[in-house]
Amino acid sequence: MKLVRFGAAGAEKPGLIDADGKVRDLSGVVPDIAGDVLGREGLKRLAAIDPKSLPLAPEGSRFGACVGRVGNFIAVGLNYADHAAESGMAVPSEPVLFNKAPSCIVGPDDTILIPRGSEKTDWEVELAVVIGEHASYVSEADALNYVAGYCVCNDISERAYQIERGGQWTKGKGCPTFGPIGPWLVTTDEVDTADLAMTLSVNGELVQNGSSSTMVFKVPFLVHYISQFMALEPGDVITTGTPPGVGMGMKPPRYLKPGDRMEVSIAGLGVQRQVVAAG
Amino acid sequence: MKLVRFGAAGAEKPGLIDADGKVRDLSGVVPDIAGDVLGREGLKRLAAIDPKSLPLAPEGSRFGACVGRVGNFIAVGLNYADHAAESGMAVPSEPVLFNKAPSCIVGPDDTILIPRGSEKTDWEVELAVVIGEHASYVSEADALNYVAGYCVCNDISERAYQIERGGQWTKGKGCPTFGPIGPWLVTTDEVDTADLAMTLSVNGELVQNGSSSTMVFKVPFLVHYISQFMALEPGDVITTGTPPGVGMGMKPPRYLKPGDRMEVSIAGLGVQRQVVAAG
Repeated sequence: MKLVRFGAAGAEKPGLIDADGKVRDLSGVVPDIAGDVLGREGLKRLAAIDPKSLPLAPEGSRFGACVGRVGNFIAVGLNYADHAAESGMAVPSEPVLFNKAPSCIVGPDDTILIPRGSEKTDWEVELAVVIGEHASYVSEADALNYVAGYCVCNDISERAYQIERGGQWTKGKGCPTFGPIGPWLVTTDEVDTADLAMTLSVNGELVQNGSSSTMVFKVPFLVHYISQFMALEPGDVITTGTPPGVGMGMKPPRYLKPGDRMEVSIAGLGVQRQVVAAG
Repeated sequence: MKLVRFGAAGAEKPGLIDADGKVRDLSGVVPDIAGDVLGREGLKRLAAIDPKSLPLAPEGSRFGACVGRVGNFIAVGLNYADHAAESGMAVPSEPVLFNKAPSCIVGPDDTILIPRGSEKTDWEVELAVVIGEHASYVSEADALNYVAGYCVCNDISERAYQIERGGQWTKGKGCPTFGPIGPWLVTTDEVDTADLAMTLSVNGELVQNGSSSTMVFKVPFLVHYISQFMALEPGDVITTGTPPGVGMGMKPPRYLKPGDRMEVSIAGLGVQRQVVAAG
């Protein structure tokens, strides 16, 4: 299933994508794509619905973030060997975790705002994992049973805030609009994360062109690992790191400026298209 | 006003403390002490109620966390000069920020669980700030207008997870039960944060005995500062750092073990009493 949230920002309705690629309105069935709806029972109930029995969403509706009420937005750093190298950092011996403020979450095609005073706003195409069930101390073998599905995330990052402003990356990771997720939440039964093509282009130029196959720590291990440190809840999102090609790694470094256009894609998970503006 | 949430875990009702120190039930007035209820209009509405017109809560009710649906649980590190010294770290030139997983939030007197395999679970009495209004790019002078009130937080920390497990402190800060907040959310009109006595005892022995007067970065600056990096939302909680006397700073270091009892207090904000157990 491809689940979506559509409509005006702050008033999104739940929906799904039918076999013809059209958005169907689920608001008569569930209140949101959030919380318990993402659990095994909730998804089973949605899967039993004939999409054609649902009303069509208005043509051209905006996509919101594909998950509502995200409680914890966790990110994994330096999880692609080549990206660690371009960042001048070693591949970590265990996952590096940090947090993005949930208030930074926006729709996949919403405008990205450069923070006031920022000079180093950067991009990162990432595979994001959406948690479906409460997960605490889960084993690697069992981990995928706690996952609802996957989506594209552009882990927008302000490098000066992240690295030059006194410890802890969170400062450069949660600025408003720094977390577009979607367009679709694709359930686990439709995705094999072993080798998904991942691309990001800026103004038509392909800058990231990688694959999830080069992830250092894979999804089941990450869910297991994180659950040893904190309880994961339905609707939590884990974004799992980026392949090479970020602006910080270029010589000279290249950062986003107002008017830039990004296109962000992962095979099977859809495409994000963002315009950059001053914040 | 002293606002509370009372009742069984996961089914807390909103309440307030009346002039006799009794808990009055607000569930006929608002659904929760959370979100918009914490805004200026919401608090004004609650302040207009005669507490005696409200039903009494059942005698001996458990206190839950004093804020519901916390969206972002932000923490400030090394914000007391003496604590930085005991941690072997320099006082930072600007605030160090990290995140606690919102799933770690519990009531003020709930049992604290030592994570499985943990050997370095530690305590930290802290003054926590509860956000009442959406705050983005706010000035220091205006910052307190975005604050609903204050509460006690025990910023429980696993030092090996925080420091020895590969960058970024978040790993040791959000384990289940690591965030007791309450018993009361005390509104800003009743609290002057300039010089509040702060204490924490373990098994009756006073280990932390400080004052908010030695905070390096004060509350208005912190709210201003954090709002430059991320939008704060109603119900977000900022815990503002701890005075000296944590277990990690003792010679030799001393950590929590099952059966230990903590008492955590800040003048005017109430007392937390926690028993420690194996997780």
